[in-house]
Amino acid sequence: MEDLFSIRHSSLEIYHPPMAATHDIVIPQTFTFGEGEPFVLESGATLGPVTLAYETYGRLNADRSNAILIAHALSGSAHAAGYHAADDARPGWWDECIGPGKAFDTDRYFIICSNVLGSCYGSSGPGSINPATGRQYGLGFPVVTIGDMVRAQVRLVDYLGIDRLLCVAGGSMGGMQVLEWAARHPHRLRAAIPLATTARHSPMLIALSEVGRQAIYADPAWNEGNYYGNGKKPDAGLALARMVGHITYLSDESMQQKFGRRLQAREQYGYEFQTEFAVESYLKYNGNNFTRRFDANSYLYVTKAMDYFDLSQPTGSFAAAFAGSAAIKFLVVSFTSDWLYPSYHSKELVRALHAVGADATYLDIESTWGHDAFLLEVDTMTRLLESFLDRLADEESVAIP
Amino acid sequence: MEDLFSIRHSSLEIYHPPMAATHDIVIPQTFTFGEGEPFVLESGATLGPVTLAYETYGRLNADRSNAILIAHALSGSAHAAGYHAADDARPGWWDECIGPGKAFDTDRYFIICSNVLGSCYGSSGPGSINPATGRQYGLGFPVVTIGDMVRAQVRLVDYLGIDRLLCVAGGSMGGMQVLEWAARHPHRLRAAIPLATTARHSPMLIALSEVGRQAIYADPAWNEGNYYGNGKKPDAGLALARMVGHITYLSDESMQQKFGRRLQAREQYGYEFQTEFAVESYLKYNGNNFTRRFDANSYLYVTKAMDYFDLSQPTGSFAAAFAGSAAIKFLVVSFTSDWLYPSYHSKELVRALHAVGADATYLDIESTWGHDAFLLEVDTMTRLLESFLDRLADEESVAIP
Repeated sequence: MEDLFSIRHSSLEIYHPPMAATHDIVIPQTFTFGEGEPFVLESGATLGPVTLAYETYGRLNADRSNAILIAHALSGSAHAAGYHAADDARPGWWDECIGPGKAFDTDRYFIICSNVLGSCYGSSGPGSINPATGRQYGLGFPVVTIGDMVRAQVRLVDYLGIDRLLCVAGGSMGGMQVLEWAARHPHRLRAAIPLATTARHSPMLIALSEVGRQAIYADPAWNEGNYYGNGKKPDAGLALARMVGHITYLSDESMQQKFGRRLQAREQYGYEFQTEFAVESYLKYNGNNFTRRFDANSYLYVTKAMDYFDLSQPTGSFAAAFAGSAAIKFLVVSFTSDWLYPSYHSKELVRALHAVGADATYLDIESTWGHDAFLLEVDTMTRLLESFLDRLADEESVAIP
Repeated sequence: MEDLFSIRHSSLEIYHPPMAATHDIVIPQTFTFGEGEPFVLESGATLGPVTLAYETYGRLNADRSNAILIAHALSGSAHAAGYHAADDARPGWWDECIGPGKAFDTDRYFIICSNVLGSCYGSSGPGSINPATGRQYGLGFPVVTIGDMVRAQVRLVDYLGIDRLLCVAGGSMGGMQVLEWAARHPHRLRAAIPLATTARHSPMLIALSEVGRQAIYADPAWNEGNYYGNGKKPDAGLALARMVGHITYLSDESMQQKFGRRLQAREQYGYEFQTEFAVESYLKYNGNNFTRRFDANSYLYVTKAMDYFDLSQPTGSFAAAFAGSAAIKFLVVSFTSDWLYPSYHSKELVRALHAVGADATYLDIESTWGHDAFLLEVDTMTRLLESFLDRLADEESVAIP
């Protein structure tokens, strides 16, 4: 397996320009299904009604051939690009890559992003109202899988009248959804872009997930998941889970570059149990911040879905999983310093794709930014995505909308 | 920098033979100082009296030239070898390497191991009684450094009547103590064996320590460190800290080999929030187990000491730190899959040692067992330590006791 090229790049701080006058305000949307016949999950449990929050950017062309689905990571939402209001402080989470003239060019493509099942940004999850009780589900919400998340997305794509997506793209857990689409719904997409991801969660990843979950369980405010309306959420546990997560999103080298052993707002060691080092301050800030925007129960559900993810099952072979995917074009990308989803996961995947005769391009990009690189290496990703999508759109004769 | 050789070895499960009839029962000992004039810590705070728990194995020879000090890691104790009672289930923590005919051969050497200051195995720490109040110190115990731990060991070595140690050896935090001895007390030792360690805690290490501490702080039973005699300890927080620790002691590869995606005592996913995967079960078991043998406040103190450790201070140069260490022989060992103390830490150290003209042998041992390799690669370590110590003892004409 040869890396096609490697690039060194170092843009850690993302600059968000003020909203341009040309930016349209994005309207969050919802799609609800399973109101009559409930949605049957992989576990055998049923769920209904099921709501997916989603957003779209750009316009669908006449033959509906220019649709690209973007799948988000653990803590992401449907708000991938643009602004909800003119005074929003920040745009959507992948705005660097989605918009007019950007990698996912909204002048050419119709971009869809939906919040995953089990999450807390408008799609059905443990914080949603259970119609059977009139109260939040809590742990009464059924455990969902990456497969369930994707089958819900298939329903959304059906609803939007799209037979075949031009592409499904995403990083980290988004990449797992991409691979699930390619393996289980191969006739519904022409291309797949799994970034910084894996086709099978490793024991190391399961271990890290479990520590996060145990931190939430250990918080007395969690109360077996029944905390909605209690006035007290398991913030301490969720913040701890997020701190562990943040460590895994960076690399040893990026931590050296970003923080080193710098002290935060002090000159000397305090010889006391306070936040002293800049890296401690960063973790604490991000951990606490996360509790204002994410639901602890959703953290349990979404990490569990990732832990269950293993496309080699039930046969034990990735090639068997992708046996029907030979007609899909793949762009597989990993990053050299990503120790959460190390490059060997992607290499294993690409070997399986080549074994079934799929057209898979693989790049192992040299970057110091660890797992976060898929979001931070904007210039590199833009060049890569543009050239892949340009060629794809030409080959598929995708008309400008 | 060239690795002298690399060895592949794979003994994960350690077999503890039943206590041999030839084994002497080891008697734990204590040494107390600072009863008159208190011990002044690096922070400027004072502590007195100071007790160190220690054990010795073998006999000191006539000219007191055969003494080796073993320094333990974060959760270790003075009980490095042998048995306290004939029916002990397990021997001391490094019994594989300390004993008659073993790497640290007690037929030839007089081995000393003491519990570090701040710990909870008999040495003064936050769980000790503060003579000023008659109650446990809790957070009233002063913050200690690796330098303080080592200066207390110097007092113990003085007390034992030993001018110069033949060697100081240890892994992980034990290795930091070894380097502190070599840098700050160079005339007190002839050789130093730092294993799987660093001369400066990195931001990644600080981040991992801080997550463990935050887990303890977040446990309501911690109660700002005042939990002694409350009937309730911060076990949940300490277990979480230990779970994070255990992840870092293994490697991605060793987790694959040891656990893979195996389920624990079940055939299929349960689709519920229970311990399902073997790796989850391992973490939970070890986390809970740890709370029966370690004190949460000591975990705070000992990790803080490691985070403060940076031999490049105050000059910014490791070579400056070892300027007086040129006469010491070093055996520096790292392990290829140790991502907690990656090999580059040892290489940086060895460059500094060579820069000051010290005789430093460096080995980067190929192992899949991650940080734990320094304890698990027994055959390799035995061969290495034996040949290094044999030559050292010959050169120093160390008499058999």
